[in-house]
Amino acid sequence: MTELTRTDHDVPESGRTSTTAAAGPDRPVAPVVRGREPTDAEHARTLAAEVSTGVLSTLGRNPAGSPFGSLAPFGLDGAGRPVLCISELAEHTRNLQADARSSLLVTRPVAPGSDPLAAARLTLIGSTSPVPDDEVAVARDVHLAGNPHAAGYVDYGDFSLWRLSVEVVRYVGGYGRMSWVDVPAWRAAEADPVAAVAAGAVTHLNDDHADACLLMARHLGDRPDAVRAVVVGLDRYGLDLRVVGAEGTGRVRLGFDEPVATGPAIRDATVALTRRARARAQGAATG
Amino acid sequence: MTELTRTDHDVPESGRTSTTAAAGPDRPVAPVVRGREPTDAEHARTLAAEVSTGVLSTLGRNPAGSPFGSLAPFGLDGAGRPVLCISELAEHTRNLQADARSSLLVTRPVAPGSDPLAAARLTLIGSTSPVPDDEVAVARDVHLAGNPHAAGYVDYGDFSLWRLSVEVVRYVGGYGRMSWVDVPAWRAAEADPVAAVAAGAVTHLNDDHADACLLMARHLGDRPDAVRAVVVGLDRYGLDLRVVGAEGTGRVRLGFDEPVATGPAIRDATVALTRRARARAQGAATG
Repeated sequence: MTELTRTDHDVPESGRTSTTAAAGPDRPVAPVVRGREPTDAEHARTLAAEVSTGVLSTLGRNPAGSPFGSLAPFGLDGAGRPVLCISELAEHTRNLQADARSSLLVTRPVAPGSDPLAAARLTLIGSTSPVPDDEVAVARDVHLAGNPHAAGYVDYGDFSLWRLSVEVVRYVGGYGRMSWVDVPAWRAAEADPVAAVAAGAVTHLNDDHADACLLMARHLGDRPDAVRAVVVGLDRYGLDLRVVGAEGTGRVRLGFDEPVATGPAIRDATVALTRRARARAQGAATG
Repeated sequence: MTELTRTDHDVPESGRTSTTAAAGPDRPVAPVVRGREPTDAEHARTLAAEVSTGVLSTLGRNPAGSPFGSLAPFGLDGAGRPVLCISELAEHTRNLQADARSSLLVTRPVAPGSDPLAAARLTLIGSTSPVPDDEVAVARDVHLAGNPHAAGYVDYGDFSLWRLSVEVVRYVGGYGRMSWVDVPAWRAAEADPVAAVAAGAVTHLNDDHADACLLMARHLGDRPDAVRAVVVGLDRYGLDLRVVGAEGTGRVRLGFDEPVATGPAIRDATVALTRRARARAQGAATG
């Protein structure tokens, strides 16, 4: 369960002008969604799996009670709990010793020159406490999987493993796309297994199969007016196209028949979409 | 005035082994400092001038009083105050309306695969409040200078300019290098004017003038044993070499005669250091 809040309060461009733009290719049109989309819990777990340094907010001592931000490399355990390896001499550790309330912000890196607020980010809010003795061995592996550099100090006596027990999850997918994610959904969600190869697949589709993408938009995406269709995203459940045509410009979401987990499965799934689009195109031409 | 705290509590490698390593090129030796070095206030202002998106920590409402981290593009005014442009619908804005206490973490980007804790970062702690009406025009320019993307929404009615009045400054230069920076020093310090060109100058010195760097280390840096000297940093006041020789490996800091503010001035200052080193080498050879 994910509570979604979609507002236009901070959409800087197209969303603001949609009611005044004239008809034509530049006019924003409503998205067409055919098939399943990742939940925000899944988006959030995918982001947390990609990034391994967050910003820890604690309640500071100087001045007392002020929120204090510090850098925190982390690993994420199977239940979505960030595991930190922190020095007893560090400011955030002393803060946590006095008050466990804390949050970890995880941000997708922003390319130089890009708008930082268009990037996805995630705040995990809860209590950060030392890992119990009988769970230290597992937690150590979790931390090192996220932050291999800790191998240099994880076993020093002044460092110890702490874990954020997540009570509230805030996800912001970019402008105007934000939600409080249901915590059991966060715990249960899995990171997208094709996240690491999706960008390569997107490039390949746009570079080598632009004709197939246009066919998909026209015949599977309810956009017979399409003259251009660019893949702008791909995940385990399907792909997103930005489609331009006489009706305007809008997103088309096309789901795969089944979730994919590997690069070859992405290829099979997009081939299947292409065949279906061709069959419908031929049906439309001959019917 | 900068209060410096130098600890070895989290130095992962050389610092830990310095008392046990055998003599030889791998042995860490104490740094040699000849000339002025940037203060931590200057390091911090330089960092804040390079980076234009920070993480804002506020006191959250869900659950009440929990520290909440969120992404915050900023511009920095002449007195070192971050200026934010935030929506009244955003979580951090609602938090600040209830409690102005807050901090902004600014982190130097970490290259993929690099140790995140080796990077410099800065926490500015204080109160964030709306910019007074008669200062909005100036603050608007300050924000846009840091975050040009805000041009798309800075004048919308639901966005407004807020400013962090800095009361405490925490600077961490990397492992084992941290300080509470004196706030008047923070306000008065200037970002390094050659920060943007320093990396190119370092590369040029190492690629094309390795012999000169070695001469500097031997004859200006009190390391007659040097067999290798690599420039690892350069700022308005001088340059840093990592010097390897029979005595061991250590840092040598060589100050310029005067602070530099441009690329040509860096060249002139390093030529002057090279000439002085050559003159001393000849003196040593003939004297």
